[in-house]
Order: sequence, then C-alpha cells, then structure tokens
Amino acid sequence: MRSGLNVSRRLVLALAAIALSACAQLAPVADPLPSWNDGPAKDAIVEFVRKTTDAASPQFVPPAQRVATFDQDGTLWVEQPMYAQVVFALDRVKDVVKAQPALAGEEPFKTVLSGDRTAMAKLGEADIMKIVAASQAGLTIEAFQDVVKAWAATAKHPKFQRPYTELVYAPMLEVLKYLRANGYRTYIVTGGGQEFVRAFAEAVYGIPPEQVMGTLLKVDYSVPGGTPTLTNAPALFFVNDKEGKPVGINLLIGRRPQAAFGNSNGDQQMLEWTTGGLGARLGMLVLHDDAKREFAYGPAAGLPESRIGTFTQPLYDEAKAKGWTVISIKNDWKRVFAFE
Amino acid sequence: MRSGLNVSRRLVLALAAIALSACAQLAPVADPLPSWNDGPAKDAIVEFVRKTTDAASPQFVPPAQRVATFDQDGTLWVEQPMYAQVVFALDRVKDVVKAQPALAGEEPFKTVLSGDRTAMAKLGEADIMKIVAASQAGLTIEAFQDVVKAWAATAKHPKFQRPYTELVYAPMLEVLKYLRANGYRTYIVTGGGQEFVRAFAEAVYGIPPEQVMGTLLKVDYSVPGGTPTLTNAPALFFVNDKEGKPVGINLLIGRRPQAAFGNSNGDQQMLEWTTGGLGARLGMLVLHDDAKREFAYGPAAGLPESRIGTFTQPLYDEAKAKGWTVISIKNDWKRVFAFE
Repeated sequence: MRSGLNVSRRLVLALAAIALSACAQLAPVADPLPSWNDGPAKDAIVEFVRKTTDAASPQFVPPAQRVATFDQDGTLWVEQPMYAQVVFALDRVKDVVKAQPALAGEEPFKTVLSGDRTAMAKLGEADIMKIVAASQAGLTIEAFQDVVKAWAATAKHPKFQRPYTELVYAPMLEVLKYLRANGYRTYIVTGGGQEFVRAFAEAVYGIPPEQVMGTLLKVDYSVPGGTPTLTNAPALFFVNDKEGKPVGINLLIGRRPQAAFGNSNGDQQMLEWTTGGLGARLGMLVLHDDAKREFAYGPAAGLPESRIGTFTQPLYDEAKAKGWTVISIKNDWKRVFAFE
Repeated sequence: MRSGLNVSRRLVLALAAIALSACAQLAPVADPLPSWNDGPAKDAIVEFVRKTTDAASPQFVPPAQRVATFDQDGTLWVEQPMYAQVVFALDRVKDVVKAQPALAGEEPFKTVLSGDRTAMAKLGEADIMKIVAASQAGLTIEAFQDVVKAWAATAKHPKFQRPYTELVYAPMLEVLKYLRANGYRTYIVTGGGQEFVRAFAEAVYGIPPEQVMGTLLKVDYSVPGGTPTLTNAPALFFVNDKEGKPVGINLLIGRRPQAAFGNSNGDQQMLEWTTGGLGARLGMLVLHDDAKREFAYGPAAGLPESRIGTFTQPLYDEAKAKGWTVISIKNDWKRVFAFE
C-alpha cells in the first residue's frame, strides 16, 4: 500500500509540474496596474514589490512583516468638496435633533438646521467635530454601521452624482489588490471615524474591520435588559490624524509599515514613521492636480490652500528630500474611476 | 495544446483524489488536545470547533469571522503570587529611579526601594499602576520591548524557579494551536500592558503583535534629531480590563469573538459580549483549584478571595447560568506545564 501510494504520488507531482509549466508558458503576464500610466510612480510600486518579495533580494521582507497603510480621504476616494463623513453627519442632523430635541437650539446644530449655506460654510473644525460626534453618539456600534450603510446606498456626490462608494480611485484599488496578491496586508489609517469606515471598507476596498484604524469616539459597555451592548458616547477618545497616525498604527498593528500612502499634511507623520524604518520602504502621496477628471487643489498643485486635504509646499519639499513618490493624478493615472 | 493540458489536468485531479483518500485512511487521527483529560471541558472545545467549521453544520462560521480571544494572566500563564508585569515593574524600579532621581523620595518608589516587604505588600492598585507606568514611560516602544525581553530571559518565578515564559499552560497552548489549525485567529486580550505582552507573545504563544490588545499608556510621536520616534508617556490612556475588554476587542478587531477564554472577574464582560452573539459561541473560565501543581485561590475554588485573579462565586454562578464552561485545572488538565 505504502509503496503503491508513493508511486501515484510521484506521478501526481510529475504531472502537476508539467501542467503548471504548460500553464506558465500559455498565460500572458497581466499588468497588475492597468489604470496606471508608465512612469516613476508606477515603477516605484512595482520595484518596491519586487525587491521586498523576491527571496533572493537583499531587501526581502518576510510575509508576516508585509504591512501597507492607506489614508482614505483623498487617497482612496474623493474628499472634495467635503469629507464624505461630514456630508453624512450633516445629513444626519435632522434625525439627531429628533432624538435629542434640546440640540435644536444649540450651535452648531441651529446653523445646520437653518439651511443657511453661508453660515454653514463658516463652521469651524470644533463645530464639525461636534456634528460628527453627534451623528454617531447614542447608537450601538451595530446600529451606527447600519445607518452608515443606508446613507452610503442613497447619498450622491454633488459633482459626480454617484454614490460616494463609487468615487474610489481605480488605480488605488489596483494597488491594494496587487499588494495583497504579494502577501501584503493592507490597512486603512484614516482621520475619519473607525466605525464609519468599517461600515463599507470590506465591500468597497476588500479591507476587513480588523484592518481599519481611525478616529475613535469613546465607547461604553453596558448590559441593558440583559443584552451586552457597546454604545458610542458623545466624547472624542482618540484623533487618528497627523501625530496620531503613527500612534494609531502602533496600537492596531504593532509593526512599522513597509509602505504608506497618503495625500495631505495629515499623512506626513505616517509617511515619516513608515519610511524611517530600515530596509526597503515606500512612501507615496497623491497630488490632486486634475480639475477635469477629479479636483485640483492645494499649494503643491500650484493652487490656493484648501481647507480639506491640505498638501502644502513644505510637505512636497519633504517628499522630494526623503524620496517619497508624488503621484500626479493628471499624469500617472490612465483613469481615475472604475466607471469612466 | 489546450486539450492535451485538460486531459493531464483531469488525470492529476483524479490521481490526487486517490492519493488523498489513501492518506486519510492511513493517517491515525491525532488527539489535538493531548494535555486535556476527557470530560466536559475538552468536549466543549472539540464540539465548538466541529460545529463552527463543518460546512454542513447549521452553526458554521465563515473563516473571516473565526476570532477567539484569550485573557493572559491566569488563563494562558501563571498569575500568582504576583502578575509577571508587576514583578517586572518592581525589578525595574532601581533603573527607573536612576534615570529619574527625583522619584527616589516619592511614594510608592520610596517604599519599593526600602525593601520593606510588609510595606510593599500594602501598596494599593493606584501605587502599583504608578510603578508599572514608570517602568515603561520615557522609553521608545522598541527600547521598552528590548527591556522586557531581557527581563524575561533572566527573571525566575519564586515557586517554580523557572522563567515566566515557561509558566504557560500546556493545555491552553494546545487550544491556541487547535483553533488556529481550524482557521481561527487567536487574540490576547489582557488587562496587562499591550507593549509588555507583545514583547514575547509571538515567541511564547505564536500570537503576532497585531493580535494583542492590552492596557495602553499614552504614546507620543516626535522626531528628535530627525528620527521619527514613538515614546511611552507616563500617562494611562486605556484600561483593557472588565468593561474595557469588549471595548478593546471592538477597537482592535471590530468583530465579536466566537470564543473567549478567561479566569477572573476581569474577563466577565468579555465572556458576556462574546457569548451574547448569535450562533455557536464558546465561553470558558479557568478555575485555579490545583494547589499541588499550580495554585488554588478564590471563592469559586472554595478558597478566600485573592487580590489577584479574583473568580468570585457570582461569576461562577453566571457561568453556570449562561452555559460557560469552567475548566478545573485539577480535573481537566492532564498536565499543567510543558516541562512536567
């Protein structure tokens, strides 16, 4: 029995080897990044993957350490003219005030309810944060995700008239898949809310909840009526932006990423932390310089500073000095969206 | 060419099927839990794995959702007579005071330096927390892990005269491996420090840093001399114990576990949250009732309440009422440690 088994096993292996080699000869080498134009940005990605995954490379990275982090707003999807989560929170204000009528007379809710667009445009960051927190607070973690999913299924972007979840960058989806196909675990590290992004990250990016780090509200555990429950509290717990990004990465992952992708000053520290490690590291910044296909904004694009997704000249200079690659949407992306 | 390939492929598959079936007939079924005595605890684990991983089972759990969480102190390794991290922190006090001489005159450091064991035994939880925080604060995350590793390599447990990292429970190591072999991702969810446990979790338990949640100190990002650095600050940021455990699980994983293992009142909420989910869930509590091979302590073991690892009678009653399985070290474990 043993010996017969070994013979058939050897035969199986031999035939499998022949079949595999035939397949390799037949299959054309598919471009893993078809939405990218040839150029330094595409080259940087392909070369990084090659040298960190080729076992013969001196810069080989063991699979367990293959971590890549991605900012979301402006890096994986559109952030202009307003962060999707802020649009969501503003859309929720009426429901929030219905649940807590006292808020109707309080700022910034009063201004939002007035519908006065000029006054709304003047709301500061603290006001926006209050609105965002209120859009989530009091809901269980499951109920909040359901609310986000329902909103994402109906809300439409003012310029593109499509759901926000369709306004993801096709070239970046390809990078996510390409990295994963090469043993990288892809994480979202966003200044947006962790629970907000988790609601759609798996469906939209193929990124599971345990690979999403974001800004955190305080969460309370309680057992109302015998049911264990996690509820969002109206208090900010951790801001996963700027200096917070390396801290959030360390909390969630406990490893320094090999690659990081961002698009604004909020990602500066994540890129510094990532590329400050030994061996091959990849730092990339998306530059929004394509007013026709998407948006153009910020000093690094030769345009006035934008309130959202600021990419200042000093960050651009730091990128050049540190060997980070700036991705020009206009020049490096063959197409921006899958629906084009 | 195509057709020839298809024929060899079909042949390969047919032969592979024969070979596999022959292997299945030849290989003896190895007991995945050899350190467990037959009984309800072992049965509960095996039955849980069977019904959540058999595709034909109505309680089948897709691989992505297979998450199991483990408390550390008293669940994966010995916690008596003192938490290893507290021993570590006390061992570090001299070095801490050398680095910050002002602390020498301050409590609780003064008491620890005096060597007065009676006074030390009276230190409260807040004092201990101060000592633990001081043992970590001011060090970069990498330097702290190095200090922990150096300590773990030399410190010995007073009863067993062995390194703490050898005082892990052999039966629990088997459960970790068994669950992983069945597609479960195993997480440590500890009241101890996240960075402390990460320093040895991979070597000792096969659990990578991204699967360790613990109590957090504040961490600061800075760039001294151009080097991006994460440094532990002397401030508590998040307590991953009791009500904090479900919150920490949600932060790190974003999924409700299918199984949770604990041993004390600090794990009550984690077990409630875990077993409160739909479908097959497993809740288990280790009862320390074996004074000979390990320790016996706490009301649930019919003994006085212990300051460490309290497993009160109400928790025992809740376990019985909710169908959680209590693991008796005395009766359920054939051996406690690998070195036995």
